Amino acid sequence: MKKLYQVLLFLLAITFVSCQNGNEATNTVNDDEASVSRQKPNIVILFADDLGYGDLGVFGNPTIKTPNLDQMAYDGMKLTQFYSTAPICSPSRGALMTGRYPVRTGIHTGVYFPKDSLGIPAEEITMAEALKEQGYATACYGKWHLGHREPYLPTNNGFDEYLGIPYSNDMWSQRGKTFPPLPLIEGTETIEEEPDQANLTPRYTQRAVDFINQNQENPFFLYVPYTFPHVPLFASDKFRGKSLRGLYGDVIEEIDWSVGEILNALKENGMAENTLVFFTSDNGPWLVKKEESGTAGLLREGKGTCWEGGMREPSIAWWPGTIEPGQVNYNIGCTMDLYATALDIGGAALPDDRVVDGISLLPVLKGEKESVRDHFFYYKGSELYAVRKGKWKAHYRTVENMYTKEVDFQEHDPPLLYNLDVDPQEMFNLAEENPEVLAELEKLVNEHKSNLVVKPSVIR
Amino acid sequence: MKKLYQVLLFLLAITFVSCQNGNEATNTVNDDEASVSRQKPNIVILFADDLGYGDLGVFGNPTIKTPNLDQMAYDGMKLTQFYSTAPICSPSRGALMTGRYPVRTGIHTGVYFPKDSLGIPAEEITMAEALKEQGYATACYGKWHLGHREPYLPTNNGFDEYLGIPYSNDMWSQRGKTFPPLPLIEGTETIEEEPDQANLTPRYTQRAVDFINQNQENPFFLYVPYTFPHVPLFASDKFRGKSLRGLYGDVIEEIDWSVGEILNALKENGMAENTLVFFTSDNGPWLVKKEESGTAGLLREGKGTCWEGGMREPSIAWWPGTIEPGQVNYNIGCTMDLYATALDIGGAALPDDRVVDGISLLPVLKGEKESVRDHFFYYKGSELYAVRKGKWKAHYRTVENMYTKEVDFQEHDPPLLYNLDVDPQEMFNLAEENPEVLAELEKLVNEHKSNLVVKPSVIR
Repeated sequence: MKKLYQVLLFLLAITFVSCQNGNEATNTVNDDEASVSRQKPNIVILFADDLGYGDLGVFGNPTIKTPNLDQMAYDGMKLTQFYSTAPICSPSRGALMTGRYPVRTGIHTGVYFPKDSLGIPAEEITMAEALKEQGYATACYGKWHLGHREPYLPTNNGFDEYLGIPYSNDMWSQRGKTFPPLPLIEGTETIEEEPDQANLTPRYTQRAVDFINQNQENPFFLYVPYTFPHVPLFASDKFRGKSLRGLYGDVIEEIDWSVGEILNALKENGMAENTLVFFTSDNGPWLVKKEESGTAGLLREGKGTCWEGGMREPSIAWWPGTIEPGQVNYNIGCTMDLYATALDIGGAALPDDRVVDGISLLPVLKGEKESVRDHFFYYKGSELYAVRKGKWKAHYRTVENMYTKEVDFQEHDPPLLYNLDVDPQEMFNLAEENPEVLAELEKLVNEHKSNLVVKPSVIR
Repeated sequence: MKKLYQVLLFLLAITFVSCQNGNEATNTVNDDEASVSRQKPNIVILFADDLGYGDLGVFGNPTIKTPNLDQMAYDGMKLTQFYSTAPICSPSRGALMTGRYPVRTGIHTGVYFPKDSLGIPAEEITMAEALKEQGYATACYGKWHLGHREPYLPTNNGFDEYLGIPYSNDMWSQRGKTFPPLPLIEGTETIEEEPDQANLTPRYTQRAVDFINQNQENPFFLYVPYTFPHVPLFASDKFRGKSLRGLYGDVIEEIDWSVGEILNALKENGMAENTLVFFTSDNGPWLVKKEESGTAGLLREGKGTCWEGGMREPSIAWWPGTIEPGQVNYNIGCTMDLYATALDIGGAALPDDRVVDGISLLPVLKGEKESVRDHFFYYKGSELYAVRKGKWKAHYRTVENMYTKEVDFQEHDPPLLYNLDVDPQEMFNLAEENPEVLAELEKLVNEHKSNLVVKPSVIR
């Protein structure tokens, strides 16, 4: 009888524990979590290239299947008004890495081409440099595009590790004789020329998972700037020809798979509750590429413009236990804020010898505040094209018809004025009825400019 | 010791049972469910008016908050390629109620206006009539729009109960002397004239919840065709002025609330696992109403057209325990299929003395099949404008610029041809490259027409 009693006691314990785990599993919290001693939270930034606002299932795409990103949003926070800080690649990445508007850093006019010799200025303090100083292991796997000469590569800008192609994947020999072979770089060494692009997403993913597995004992910062869906599009055998949406869909579905692998690695290592993962993109879809471009969904225009389609990105934050599941945030945020958020999480002070434009989103992620930012400036190159404060957006300059390449540049006086909450499609100009709003936005722009030193372009 | 053994056995059982319940709760299944003896499943159809494909959070809207519909999708099935059967009101509702293309029933050209004297033909077998014969209690609360003279009202077409306004809410005295006072009808009696439209959604909702509460012992069919977001827009005090999106958003957020109330009533009565709830709309957004119109998201055009924005609707199916949570279905479905599905669920055979175009979606909902329908005809009035088979859609006629009211009608020979899976925005005409696809679609249309008797319009 005593044995039976022991068996029953054991069964009771097992059943109770398994029941608890079953319930916890619904919050995607790893069961081993509690046993891992707490350290500074890890930070993972997953950064797509030219992804459109309407390219994910949870952002309304009808034929691209993104179950992992959709689940990430249901388990975390979907941000519907989150911006990349520039409508093209290098300036956008510069702002993410420095927390500063491109005009302040000089990384603003155009993007780095293989012939260029400069890169991110040494005096900039990258997110990786700030976190490394706080004891973080740091790694970048993917497209850097902030300079490809040695001093400008990730491992000379705060990253312990780098594997990736250093600029856009269309800057390759197949585009003509102007381009050297596309390099795949490990650290600062070219390890392959013209690598098989179909394997890039799996390779970045494997390295990301390995890096997570190898950093159990210390906090880490992992930055995965995917090479895709920038054209030319490539997907691995496992995904090529599989999506309803054609090759573009194959590529997004492979990125979705990659996100799933990375989240799984965090869960399996019991790190889920101690890691912020943020998914977004560098700018909107490259519409001129037609079927090989994504869609901005209901938003107007795409890459290269300061219309919403050019800079508002499908964005998801995930941090089980800190971010309540199923949240949707409807307020303004931007990639510069990720810089401030990362430093905040890592315990690093913002540099006080320069202007940092990013604002920590930590109170938003924790549910303490709905918003930390009330305005945002839309730059194209060194020119301010538009400003948003709250729901109001004024355009001083616009480019349109990027889709047809018959680009139509206009200056607007009075500016165009849109209420983005009511009219996210930017269809109904309300300038005439709202002179006081225009005046308020003008004042904001003037204040901004009075404090601004535009640094000459370092993209050359 | 024996007592202790019994106590432990009891505790083990309790813990196990409570654990099971805890897990089940994540599927939104009421714990009392098991004790309710099974009867034929209930059917609830929630039908918005002029709702756009991009108007719900889970379909990508950035500022309209629809937590209940989003949750309904996460707990059920989101359908990304589901169509209303006509791009305007009465024909769309006729097809839903009969499972037949409007050309077969005569409910096709235009919509019923107050001066009209006809309605849904007596010989049509409505969904409600078919289900009533199978022992279902039936109720309709909302906008009928299939005839407002006594013989045509819901209670003379299979519904035990009706409360609602019988046609569109802009057919009211404020639009001019041509219109009589807008009636609110209970059964076949006008109980109010020009009712406070701000209370319509709450009134329909209360009646729907009461009906659910009152039908514990028998299967029921509940049809809630909301009056909104058709203009003029009204929301109750609780919602007016509350949404970011303005009055249009207030109205959608009130409908979202209503959906939540109805799902809660089902859960509280332990009926969730025995009820199919389907949410969709009668046609796309009425773009000419500008800020008072919804958005078709990435889809082209809206109400009144056979572009995707006119007829593809944000659709969600919910049936805990039968529909696996978190499903997304990417295949063609349409409102006529809801007719066949309802009859299938209710155990009624499809009428065999006429053509029924609907196909039961039950195998899709159960996860047995991905699709039951491979083609769909897009009609405007009595004219076939377009056809879809699989991913291919051919337009023989189009109307455009509905937004500006400068309507542009065109006939196309050769037809326009779009790959809707790759190009849901209908931007890239592939007719020239795909003559064999056009020939196949043409054959399908010819077969359809050879079997078709177009009934003269009964809208007058």
